[in-house]
Amino acid sequence: MAEQVQRQTGVALWRQIADRIRDAINTGAYDETGMVPPETVLALQFGVNRHTVRSALAALAQEGIVRAVQGRGTLIERKERLNFPITRRTRFTAGIGAQAREMRGLLLDHTEEGADAEVARWLRLRPGAAVIRLETLRMADKRPVSCATTWFPADRFAGIDEAYRKTESITKAFAELGLPDYVRATTEITAAHADSRDITTLELTPGAILLITKAMNTDIEGVPVQYSISRFAADRVQFTIEN
Amino acid sequence: MAEQVQRQTGVALWRQIADRIRDAINTGAYDETGMVPPETVLALQFGVNRHTVRSALAALAQEGIVRAVQGRGTLIERKERLNFPITRRTRFTAGIGAQAREMRGLLLDHTEEGADAEVARWLRLRPGAAVIRLETLRMADKRPVSCATTWFPADRFAGIDEAYRKTESITKAFAELGLPDYVRATTEITAAHADSRDITTLELTPGAILLITKAMNTDIEGVPVQYSISRFAADRVQFTIEN
Repeated sequence: MAEQVQRQTGVALWRQIADRIRDAINTGAYDETGMVPPETVLALQFGVNRHTVRSALAALAQEGIVRAVQGRGTLIERKERLNFPITRRTRFTAGIGAQAREMRGLLLDHTEEGADAEVARWLRLRPGAAVIRLETLRMADKRPVSCATTWFPADRFAGIDEAYRKTESITKAFAELGLPDYVRATTEITAAHADSRDITTLELTPGAILLITKAMNTDIEGVPVQYSISRFAADRVQFTIEN
Repeated sequence: MAEQVQRQTGVALWRQIADRIRDAINTGAYDETGMVPPETVLALQFGVNRHTVRSALAALAQEGIVRAVQGRGTLIERKERLNFPITRRTRFTAGIGAQAREMRGLLLDHTEEGADAEVARWLRLRPGAAVIRLETLRMADKRPVSCATTWFPADRFAGIDEAYRKTESITKAFAELGLPDYVRATTEITAAHADSRDITTLELTPGAILLITKAMNTDIEGVPVQYSISRFAADRVQFTIEN
């Protein structure tokens, strides 16, 4: 049965098909063979010609998701999403944990600024109160996973930029600054299209999807210590909540 | 400063801009005025001509997100996402609760089938065991919010299709079949592009994003009673986790 791809929608057919194949890979539709179906099969499935399918596969090859092997077809290079548990004890590095050989946390930028209304509300500060903002990028095995904007009360966490740069971990940076423990209080999850900045930082292609979390952490007495907006490449992670 | 829109990516400029404006509306960037900036401003911002901006705004108007008002500009019609708390006690109707005047749950299709490997694993049945599958659509104030595929052990929940059709609620259908209480055990969250079927069912446009949950519920003794894959229009909901 031919699946509908929609013409004249502003999204080229090859890109619609690339998105569809990427989603099929991620949901495990081709797990049995570890290969994408032959071009002729895909052309029939989507009701397009082989050139269109070939463009779609070329785009996926460029993203490192598939690889064409002469005489064999199109191999799936990787599909596993990193699993990110969201719990009261959530820590990024521990959460991704054994799923990656190398975890990095890079400090891209930092500044001190006045809290806007949203940041002030989450951190329970007055608007305009001094906060430290960090822009960070998390990599798992050299692959960008997420970028985050994080705010901390400036009076309590002076020097957290340097502590993060050195330790590459918010948990360790907190510990260096005298906060041995904290908990995740609230997490909001949405999804949106990646903007041009995130496309560059996370090495995505246009049309890519982000999972976006807004999260507030407190110390063990319930005082907010951190508010973060994190943007995850939706292809590369899933969140798990155990109740 | 001109934001980058990327040419020759397979996604038309007007669609990239429509996606960008939609995301800006949803993140509250235009909350102060309740209006989208003038066409000339957007044209400058994205480095395109006014016709391209006009196409983007026309697409958003068709989705019911904005409305052009003669002599005033482009009003934002709605931006609020329904907030869906994910907790051990999660119930869809109660969860959305006071946020909508009218909640509906429509039974689109139902069948009895043998559990595939994934369904059997989640419901802790042997592969091929009889399960009842429901295809449902949830509406809030006549607007589609999510569609779901849900499986139940057939021997325990014979007749749940009729009970759902009558009550429009899984909680109430369970109660009719002698299960007064259940809890949400595990939820996995990912995001993907909507396929053509979901675009039609959820009244979306191509390129739209879905938040996808896989959730398993158990009775109070921990026995799985339900496994669901739910597809939410990402524009219309956010998930909240309180730890």
